[in-house]
Amino acid sequence: MKIHGKHYRTIWTRPDETVEVIDQMKLPHVFETAVLKNAEDCAVAIKTMLVRGAPLIGATAAYGVAFAMKKDPSSKALVEAIDMLGATRPTAVNLRWALRRMNSVLKGIGHEDRFAAAWAEAAKICDEDVGTCRMIGVNAMPIFREIAKKNGGKLNVLTHCNAGWLACVDWGTALAPMYMAHDEGIDIHVWVDETRPRNQGASLSAYELGAHGVKHTIIADNAGGHYMQHGMVDLVIVGTDRVTRNGDVANKIGTYLKALAAHDNGVPFYVALPSSTLDMSMAKGSDIPIEERSTDELLKMTGRLPGGGLATVEIAAPGSPGANPAFDVTPARLVTSFITERGVCAATEEGLKGLFPQLA
Amino acid sequence: MKIHGKHYRTIWTRPDETVEVIDQMKLPHVFETAVLKNAEDCAVAIKTMLVRGAPLIGATAAYGVAFAMKKDPSSKALVEAIDMLGATRPTAVNLRWALRRMNSVLKGIGHEDRFAAAWAEAAKICDEDVGTCRMIGVNAMPIFREIAKKNGGKLNVLTHCNAGWLACVDWGTALAPMYMAHDEGIDIHVWVDETRPRNQGASLSAYELGAHGVKHTIIADNAGGHYMQHGMVDLVIVGTDRVTRNGDVANKIGTYLKALAAHDNGVPFYVALPSSTLDMSMAKGSDIPIEERSTDELLKMTGRLPGGGLATVEIAAPGSPGANPAFDVTPARLVTSFITERGVCAATEEGLKGLFPQLA
Repeated sequence: MKIHGKHYRTIWTRPDETVEVIDQMKLPHVFETAVLKNAEDCAVAIKTMLVRGAPLIGATAAYGVAFAMKKDPSSKALVEAIDMLGATRPTAVNLRWALRRMNSVLKGIGHEDRFAAAWAEAAKICDEDVGTCRMIGVNAMPIFREIAKKNGGKLNVLTHCNAGWLACVDWGTALAPMYMAHDEGIDIHVWVDETRPRNQGASLSAYELGAHGVKHTIIADNAGGHYMQHGMVDLVIVGTDRVTRNGDVANKIGTYLKALAAHDNGVPFYVALPSSTLDMSMAKGSDIPIEERSTDELLKMTGRLPGGGLATVEIAAPGSPGANPAFDVTPARLVTSFITERGVCAATEEGLKGLFPQLA
Repeated sequence: MKIHGKHYRTIWTRPDETVEVIDQMKLPHVFETAVLKNAEDCAVAIKTMLVRGAPLIGATAAYGVAFAMKKDPSSKALVEAIDMLGATRPTAVNLRWALRRMNSVLKGIGHEDRFAAAWAEAAKICDEDVGTCRMIGVNAMPIFREIAKKNGGKLNVLTHCNAGWLACVDWGTALAPMYMAHDEGIDIHVWVDETRPRNQGASLSAYELGAHGVKHTIIADNAGGHYMQHGMVDLVIVGTDRVTRNGDVANKIGTYLKALAAHDNGVPFYVALPSSTLDMSMAKGSDIPIEERSTDELLKMTGRLPGGGLATVEIAAPGSPGANPAFDVTPARLVTSFITERGVCAATEEGLKGLFPQLA
């Protein structure tokens, strides 16, 4: 997608066989890129959340393996690199998926060809992610077009958290159709939930949409229900961190509340679902472990000072404890449809099996 | 209630016929008071939310009228003061209630007695508010006791925004029974919604509860539904800024989402309702004007710097616009009961008329 007219991916290769990424720790306050030169750089980038978002973490780890193979293409070095990169974010599913894929490709290849093969496979992982996201956008567009047509060309979309291109390699999942709708001339406006406590909506989704020129408004997470009551939201679309066999959806904390409000007001609620996020081995959402994160995310806030520079301030009553569950589970009954790279389906086991029989 | 061992109300008179209030814009970071010397001071204090909370706004406005009568006891000045003070906050019905009450008391009184009468009536409004809040606590206690008894003496309560003593003159509305439950030995724990964008939960409710020694945990507004899904909330109780004849409830933005989640999970949802907040002249919640506040409240955040002192930082993507509706309306169908100074009633016109026939 574009930042001030220039096309970017979140990760790309340089002629000197290094990798460049957007430094997401500095967003939205400063746009800077960082160069990753070896496997250790990649591990640090993932661990510090310089890169974040499940697909992008996987892609960065894949390049980390490639860097390791350039330095030492031995099988011992391969195992060590995979172990080191796999330890950066213990809960990220895509990370392990990408490392498994790199290992299975590389283990059957001679040492002299390993770097080239690894470099090519990492690029393939990136390109495949772009293709998946693009197809989610393409498959969502008939829905977006139909609702916009009913509204005389206008479309008000609400989203929660950041399921945009900054979380992926390009396009994003839930945000892909927003860019496509904008680019084909639909008068789209996005209500961006700020998404406490990490504010990925106000920081990243707003940044993405603004940089590409898509009309949007940041709102408190509390406000979405009110706008739905007043007919100011035509559809909700969100990403997901895991979908279970019965269609339950784990996503950023607070998603469930928006799904309830959408249901109560007859607003369609869509989940953008790449098949890599589908976990057919898990029966239902209540089986999903919910990550508890640091309360610093809730009780402190970082931003730009009036005179320049950044500061982190403590915002809550001194001494009061907090709790910070990172995800909640939206029951399948509240989901209108899944929008996947293969098409649109009902939020049911039958719906999912229809599109992805190989995963059943 | 007490701060640092000393009993306070939120508003009190001084010997020099001025009024002193707790500066709630500075809480929870700094405890300071401010002196209000004239009607304009009162209007600014209400508008800037130096004082906030429906009952406290009404009390402050009453003193504003008294100040106006001291300066000029003419009927023209009375009308002008009421107009100016009434224009400060559009949604809170207590403001208009207090101003109407002051008007009806003062219009029949000779100019030379108006200031004294107004000063006495404002004090009466304050004292009555303390009594009303105390009775809301008393009337809620059978519900709190019964649910705690079923839970072996434990009680997990969730609240949104600040309907505590800082919003009133003393006790609070929704928080009054929390203090009483704590004081009588019920093992109560309060989930405090931080309540974006102004963070009255994390700032004020947490501050109040902490100062009184009530166990509590600050959570993102996004998290309440998740805790309800997991059986970790026994009841929800909130305040209100206006209740219409049919039982619809205007309260801080996001209340509606918590009511939906409570309903979806079979958690009782109570509204603490002083009769001064009841607007029987308005048929339904969709008629209530919703105040749109400055987006600075959403896009900037004030807090304590690590080295001491306060700073305000910009937290969102630069240039992205925001929107900031301050209230939403929870439909009566989602409200389990109203808890008033006269007792508990159903969230229906019949329920309200049963307790308050004189308002019907």
